[in-house]
Amino acid sequence: MLLLNIHHVAVAVRDLDATLERFAELYGVSPISRETVEEQGVDEAMLAIGGSHVQLLQPTGPDTPVGRFLERRGEGLHHVAYAVPDIEAALEHLRAEGAVLVDETPRIGGGGHRIAFVHPKTLGGALTELVEIS
Amino acid sequence: MLLLNIHHVAVAVRDLDATLERFAELYGVSPISRETVEEQGVDEAMLAIGGSHVQLLQPTGPDTPVGRFLERRGEGLHHVAYAVPDIEAALEHLRAEGAVLVDETPRIGGGGHRIAFVHPKTLGGALTELVEIS
Repeated sequence: MLLLNIHHVAVAVRDLDATLERFAELYGVSPISRETVEEQGVDEAMLAIGGSHVQLLQPTGPDTPVGRFLERRGEGLHHVAYAVPDIEAALEHLRAEGAVLVDETPRIGGGGHRIAFVHPKTLGGALTELVEIS
Repeated sequence: MLLLNIHHVAVAVRDLDATLERFAELYGVSPISRETVEEQGVDEAMLAIGGSHVQLLQPTGPDTPVGRFLERRGEGLHHVAYAVPDIEAALEHLRAEGAVLVDETPRIGGGGHRIAFVHPKTLGGALTELVEIS
């Protein structure tokens, strides 16, 4: 298993536009991409910081994973994502080690990358995403 | 304001040794440093991932910020830290922009770096740390 870097840290927010505006004022960072990922029920924006990113997630509705997260815990850090060179190999390794996989096989996430989520109970209570960067 | 990179993503855990062991098994990453920061009431370990780090935090007792976090929310993502070249200038800018600062002036954190925390209510509910990297 090789983790190339921290691809992004995701933050669940109620108002993506307002958060982006404030991010620019406070930290001078603007989004490099913005898209709606219908399958995940989010409007998302990526902000580049050094070689990593902050991903801001606003749910498209209350009955979505991020909508339920906001209802339960409020705004805040949602997940951490690691870049991997081969997501199939990574999932196979994690499965063999007894990790609890949210996604048994990769799916397409933001930016068209192949991604998979690993359940928070696997390690330190942190929802973890793998992003294949080839 | 210049953010150099995501310096680390911190995870609050109950058992640092067990989490480090599992981190190595799952992701093949071992700590580059480990120390007790008495002032913050944590035993912490840093794991290098690309140009960033994951920081694992185990409280030294229940009546500490991370101890109370675990009691309230359980294990999970605790804060995100950005590297900045000049922490005094960063704090001055944030103060002028109306940010809610946990630390009005820098203090010494893990690794001997000058650090300061910014309150989660400032932006997206995410506890944020600045780490001066000169």
